[in-house]
Amino acid sequence: MRQRFPEQFRVEKFVTDVLSDSSLSAGFQEYDGPVIEPLALFAAKSGGELVGRQSYSFTDRGKREVILRPEMTPSLARMVASCGELQLPVRWFSMPLCYRYERPQRGRVREFLQFNLDILGSNSLASELEVILVLNGIMKTFKAPSSIYRIGWSSRRFMTDALSRCGVKEELQSSVFSAIDKRDKMKEDEWADYLLQACGSDTEVAEKVAFLVLVESLSDSWLVSLMAESSAFREVQKFDQLLKKTGISSAEFSPGVVRGLDYYTGIVFELMDTGSGNRRSLCGGGRYDNLVGLFGTGRISGVGFGLGVLTLTLFLESYGLIPESVKQAALADVYIAVASPSVVADAGLLAEFLRSRGVRVMMDVSGKKLGKQFSEASRNRISRVITVGENEVQKGIYRMKNLSDGKAAEGSAEELIRVLR
Amino acid sequence: MRQRFPEQFRVEKFVTDVLSDSSLSAGFQEYDGPVIEPLALFAAKSGGELVGRQSYSFTDRGKREVILRPEMTPSLARMVASCGELQLPVRWFSMPLCYRYERPQRGRVREFLQFNLDILGSNSLASELEVILVLNGIMKTFKAPSSIYRIGWSSRRFMTDALSRCGVKEELQSSVFSAIDKRDKMKEDEWADYLLQACGSDTEVAEKVAFLVLVESLSDSWLVSLMAESSAFREVQKFDQLLKKTGISSAEFSPGVVRGLDYYTGIVFELMDTGSGNRRSLCGGGRYDNLVGLFGTGRISGVGFGLGVLTLTLFLESYGLIPESVKQAALADVYIAVASPSVVADAGLLAEFLRSRGVRVMMDVSGKKLGKQFSEASRNRISRVITVGENEVQKGIYRMKNLSDGKAAEGSAEELIRVLR
Repeated sequence: MRQRFPEQFRVEKFVTDVLSDSSLSAGFQEYDGPVIEPLALFAAKSGGELVGRQSYSFTDRGKREVILRPEMTPSLARMVASCGELQLPVRWFSMPLCYRYERPQRGRVREFLQFNLDILGSNSLASELEVILVLNGIMKTFKAPSSIYRIGWSSRRFMTDALSRCGVKEELQSSVFSAIDKRDKMKEDEWADYLLQACGSDTEVAEKVAFLVLVESLSDSWLVSLMAESSAFREVQKFDQLLKKTGISSAEFSPGVVRGLDYYTGIVFELMDTGSGNRRSLCGGGRYDNLVGLFGTGRISGVGFGLGVLTLTLFLESYGLIPESVKQAALADVYIAVASPSVVADAGLLAEFLRSRGVRVMMDVSGKKLGKQFSEASRNRISRVITVGENEVQKGIYRMKNLSDGKAAEGSAEELIRVLR
Repeated sequence: MRQRFPEQFRVEKFVTDVLSDSSLSAGFQEYDGPVIEPLALFAAKSGGELVGRQSYSFTDRGKREVILRPEMTPSLARMVASCGELQLPVRWFSMPLCYRYERPQRGRVREFLQFNLDILGSNSLASELEVILVLNGIMKTFKAPSSIYRIGWSSRRFMTDALSRCGVKEELQSSVFSAIDKRDKMKEDEWADYLLQACGSDTEVAEKVAFLVLVESLSDSWLVSLMAESSAFREVQKFDQLLKKTGISSAEFSPGVVRGLDYYTGIVFELMDTGSGNRRSLCGGGRYDNLVGLFGTGRISGVGFGLGVLTLTLFLESYGLIPESVKQAALADVYIAVASPSVVADAGLLAEFLRSRGVRVMMDVSGKKLGKQFSEASRNRISRVITVGENEVQKGIYRMKNLSDGKAAEGSAEELIRVLR
């Protein structure tokens, strides 16, 4: 279970702050939904496995079948559907805690923060472009060079058309999609067998599908002739041009990217580490057309992505992109050392005054000797110590020592604030 | 269940930001624990009722008895106990989601954010003073005048001694404490009966206890003679002087404040609305001596408080202390209107450039006509609109209109940034 000591918390906060700030900087607004949701909300749309063995579901005291949300999108869809007066499009993001009951492993825990960003109510490819711009902006803010990550993308609509042109029968589409999604998790020959089976043991079809998945360029002549006159192919070409024109060099058309969740219908994408350290996708997303409609309003199309904060943090750490200053932050600007118990209240008054002027102040509460209080300041990486004793209180003049260079300043509280700035 | 649309989220964030910033400003560090905890962690220390009927507890798929944490302090105690190398004292705060299964009512919901702030490992009264200074600083930051709130305080140790001097038998102490805690929730005569019963139907004892609870001053002569030679009384007097000297005018000695939770052992306090609108306490806290020891390390004393974010928000709203600008915030500095589908990528590039320079940019994704895009900007309270069309892209010169005064500026992206600043 997720437990964060302060140093770990600072790292997580560094990561989530970049995610929030990048979202706000693009006009997205934050929202949140309940952790405990009706089981039925997820049973319909997330696929059986997730809701079955892999969830925290239980019956509450009011005899309701509930679940600790495994993901956010169904709650988002219900929230958007519930406010009829909402003017579209909406740009929303969230940083929910989500739950999954499975064996914990690296980057995979039972309680996890999952960043979500969505645009609802726009059919234009500008939405897909915008969410990928935000995602790419996030990576740039973390100073991740574009060589270490890849945004692989494709389209469900395009792949549905392409699979059918490869000869996949309609009733086998969903199992072929699922086989394609599992490609990275299996050995090559194992996967070939798995795919063949998904294709109804039709060798010719399976070969075409395997070939399709390996296509790397939209101008591949086999692909162009396979997809002649396909509107889904035209959409994919158009989106490719948009990405190229905005110079997102890490974006790559990859027919093998189909994303596991059932609800995607259009463009899909994922963020991958190009190195070998983090094999899971850092983020997955795409367009879903039929989700909000489940909750009663008309069809509202959405585009969005989810990103695991822990997976991203491990990725950033493995490339040295979490600044040491985040872990080793000074806990305050000044430490107030208290020379005797008789001046505790005076120290408190001084602390309050400095804090009200924007200075971060740690006040001694240990009651130990002055020397130990100075060590306490160092231990907390605080470089300045103001000593408060009876003399100082009487005169209103304090001595502030700089522990890094040993120099000292003397003056009233006002004057010391000036030194601090 | 807690569900936050963006406007509500902004209000909550405004409140939680003040709580975090005030804590950081006093050298406290943020941590977090798991939402799902072993039931046993709470069964021992929180009192039967909370763990029994009023909790979300269930058996997980691994046959563990678990609970969605109803409060944070036991998890904090375990975390502190688990890291033996931790140097004391520690100043930690947290903003956990907590859970309670009870009938929802105003200010009382099943899923709630509970701010927690604690100092562990210091026996000095300076710790009690420091946490109350932070609490008072929070109220000042919200611009709450000291007339609208009251920090009532007392001491468990003092009250234990005082009750015994009033003639309460040791075996009745805990039920008398519980009766005192319920005083504000009952009618006067109803409470008198309840107290009498708690005192083993001894009228003389019950009268003394009722008298004790009403004492308003530490120099009350009846109290002074009752508590002659009591070290707990001396501690209370000393703390009273500390509070008076630091000028916390909202702090008031109130023997009736005992706090419900079993684990408090020393000074206890609560924050109350002095008006009639919010009868519940906004915050409760105190010193607990025996909690960390439950987890194996030696005795570590702690002082802290918990504060319900929703209750505080309702309090602030009832006094008009949530600024209108929080609810009605502009969602971006600039809206980028897209004149034709052919320039979507160029608009994206401009958006990316402005964002990288610290400008918050909402880019059109609706694909609607320009007039509608301008309305979209207004609706999101964005006062400036940059229009991107083929002409603009060719020349690299954009027109930015200020919707509030109708004026327009023209220039390169760089030049427009200067206008925005």
